[in-house]
Amino acid sequence: MAQQTANGGVCPRRGGLSAVQGVRAAGVACGLKKSGASDLALVAAERPATVAAVFTKNLVQAAPVGVSKRHLKGGRFSAMVLNSGNANACTGIKGLRDAEQSVAEVARLLGCPVGEVFVASTGVIGRPLNLSAVLQGIRAAVPRLSPKGGGQAARAIMTTDTVAKEAAVAIRVGRRDVVVGGMAKGSGMIAPNMATMLSVIATDAAISARTLQVALSAATAETFNCITLDGDTSTNDTVLTFATGASGVEIRPGSTAFRRFQAALQSVCETLAKMIARDGEGATKLAEIVITGARSSVEARRAAETVANSPLVKTTLFGEDINWGRIMAALGRSGAHFDPRRVAIWVDDIAVVRRGETCGQRAEAAANRRLTRREFALRADLGAGRAAGRIWTTDLSEAYVRINAGYRT
Amino acid sequence: MAQQTANGGVCPRRGGLSAVQGVRAAGVACGLKKSGASDLALVAAERPATVAAVFTKNLVQAAPVGVSKRHLKGGRFSAMVLNSGNANACTGIKGLRDAEQSVAEVARLLGCPVGEVFVASTGVIGRPLNLSAVLQGIRAAVPRLSPKGGGQAARAIMTTDTVAKEAAVAIRVGRRDVVVGGMAKGSGMIAPNMATMLSVIATDAAISARTLQVALSAATAETFNCITLDGDTSTNDTVLTFATGASGVEIRPGSTAFRRFQAALQSVCETLAKMIARDGEGATKLAEIVITGARSSVEARRAAETVANSPLVKTTLFGEDINWGRIMAALGRSGAHFDPRRVAIWVDDIAVVRRGETCGQRAEAAANRRLTRREFALRADLGAGRAAGRIWTTDLSEAYVRINAGYRT
Repeated sequence: MAQQTANGGVCPRRGGLSAVQGVRAAGVACGLKKSGASDLALVAAERPATVAAVFTKNLVQAAPVGVSKRHLKGGRFSAMVLNSGNANACTGIKGLRDAEQSVAEVARLLGCPVGEVFVASTGVIGRPLNLSAVLQGIRAAVPRLSPKGGGQAARAIMTTDTVAKEAAVAIRVGRRDVVVGGMAKGSGMIAPNMATMLSVIATDAAISARTLQVALSAATAETFNCITLDGDTSTNDTVLTFATGASGVEIRPGSTAFRRFQAALQSVCETLAKMIARDGEGATKLAEIVITGARSSVEARRAAETVANSPLVKTTLFGEDINWGRIMAALGRSGAHFDPRRVAIWVDDIAVVRRGETCGQRAEAAANRRLTRREFALRADLGAGRAAGRIWTTDLSEAYVRINAGYRT
Repeated sequence: MAQQTANGGVCPRRGGLSAVQGVRAAGVACGLKKSGASDLALVAAERPATVAAVFTKNLVQAAPVGVSKRHLKGGRFSAMVLNSGNANACTGIKGLRDAEQSVAEVARLLGCPVGEVFVASTGVIGRPLNLSAVLQGIRAAVPRLSPKGGGQAARAIMTTDTVAKEAAVAIRVGRRDVVVGGMAKGSGMIAPNMATMLSVIATDAAISARTLQVALSAATAETFNCITLDGDTSTNDTVLTFATGASGVEIRPGSTAFRRFQAALQSVCETLAKMIARDGEGATKLAEIVITGARSSVEARRAAETVANSPLVKTTLFGEDINWGRIMAALGRSGAHFDPRRVAIWVDDIAVVRRGETCGQRAEAAANRRLTRREFALRADLGAGRAAGRIWTTDLSEAYVRINAGYRT
């Protein structure tokens, strides 16, 4: 039984995909990664499930994104194959055929319709996929599919991630538990030619594809779409959720159960999103940028993004020195409308700027001490309205440059 | 007599402001910089000149920007005082009064109307200006004003610049020479709390304030506004041009002489802009990003800016490895509309992508060798139209982070 908590009854569970009834997963090494590390994950629902997904908004989209988008229209999920080591992006007709043959092989081996199989890739852009390796990987993965395979799958989708990323929670609906659990891999601060944020989340709730899509779109807007590491979005970003219904709990739109399910899904997304940010290449800090007092939520979001992506602000965080003039300058060029003489800025609860001017050197010194922590909030009130926005970001370290310059030694 | 060249008759001259007749300048140390280096520049026209200027578009504007904007309305220029070491930004009412008292002191000592004196500051944001030091500096600078003082002035406005930046050219109009010369200091990749790109350019042409403004706005759009180092615009950016008329050559709008004057002014701006980019903190490369085949010039510009500001592209340049997938991904999220299957990418004249796919490893190897140079062009054709855009950027190095993190040792 799920414990009741203050957090709307959302209780953490161990693991990720494997915490969810009716889900099987596997991870194998098929040779796409030169290191020989595992690089192909297979996730399957024991019975056909409903499905929802969000994809990269980048105009340049990888072949697997095109295939998965097409299959999403059917609203049914049997399995998903994910590979690391090659993004299968900017690979033309061959890339599309490779993605199609991958899902066809999964469908053949599992005995399900091709349209219920999804695909995602992450890795080098612009290199042809080694299809025979992928097909071999699929054949190796199918017999290894197991209710306990979630951890293996999470490891198989890692690229420059330093840790596998899994999260799960449970909520109580009536007398039964509903579990939401999933995995993700990092993005943003990414190694040479690597890209992509991928996440697969399962639930044992019984929920229509349409309602699941509503829940997922809302959850990603508040979580995965609120992390910005360097402003670069990938050609392959995919977040997919499927619902097995194995709990027997039906979630109808507009119900109390839906609101709790939404909270559970968002909690898993937020945990995975923060894991991605913390594991950003070279990141040493996780900062929550909070803008209040904006004229509109669009302006609040724009202000938060501009501050979060400013290299000068990000190096300031790395340097643990609250150069708030850089925050003011970023707000001023963000496109948000406000009177600079009404701006206030805090680090957590420590005010450093009031009415657009410094709160003094003692306040700044206190803020600098706070910046030595690994996580903190940077808050700015624009004094122009009631709208608010929030985004997570990391600092910009020398290690980021070192990793991304990709010294070819 | 100016030599005729292929470049529309625009001939380089030595020096900067001091190349221009009727201009006097000085640079002194007044104690704003802890190092004791010179930190106050004074520039004066021997007789009242016409003036034009462009200022930062940041909503947060420093006190001196407000004062100079007000004085610009009069269209007349006698002198300008510039200090480094303190930006006088986010300094409230005191900051405004400090800027006003600085120009009043210059006007008193030179015996000219206050409205003909301009002011600019660069340095730390949010710290009160040491006004008495500035006033002392002004008093020391006035008797030192000299036709040969341009170099001193250029040194006095440096902050983290490693070299003083001066440029001058001459054009021939009828039987007489017209000279345009000026100075600048860097921006963008900037030390802790430092900000600001400043430039002062003089000419001995006789030209109305209105016509000069047309020429300056056009020149900055193609030069200073085409360098982007980290996307951060400052609270203090100022480019000011004044025309002494000492050459006796009158420049009327729409004339052949105007077109040549425009080319001369743009040439000085371009030289100074590139000097700023090359001297960007930690920069080791200067890249010209050229977008062609866009649907509109707005989309071309947006695509160029997105590529130029992408940390992943910039680290790629530093790493001398043509990860063109990052360029494709940046184009794809830029908001420009195009078909990825029609994109071509070059490093100088070396094609690496055609029809959205790689030109092969040999081509990429050749491109990588080209990236080892200090200057090159990165070109992308979107295959969607006829519009083009261009921007200069630099690479992103570990030194950038080191400098901007501002280790407080």
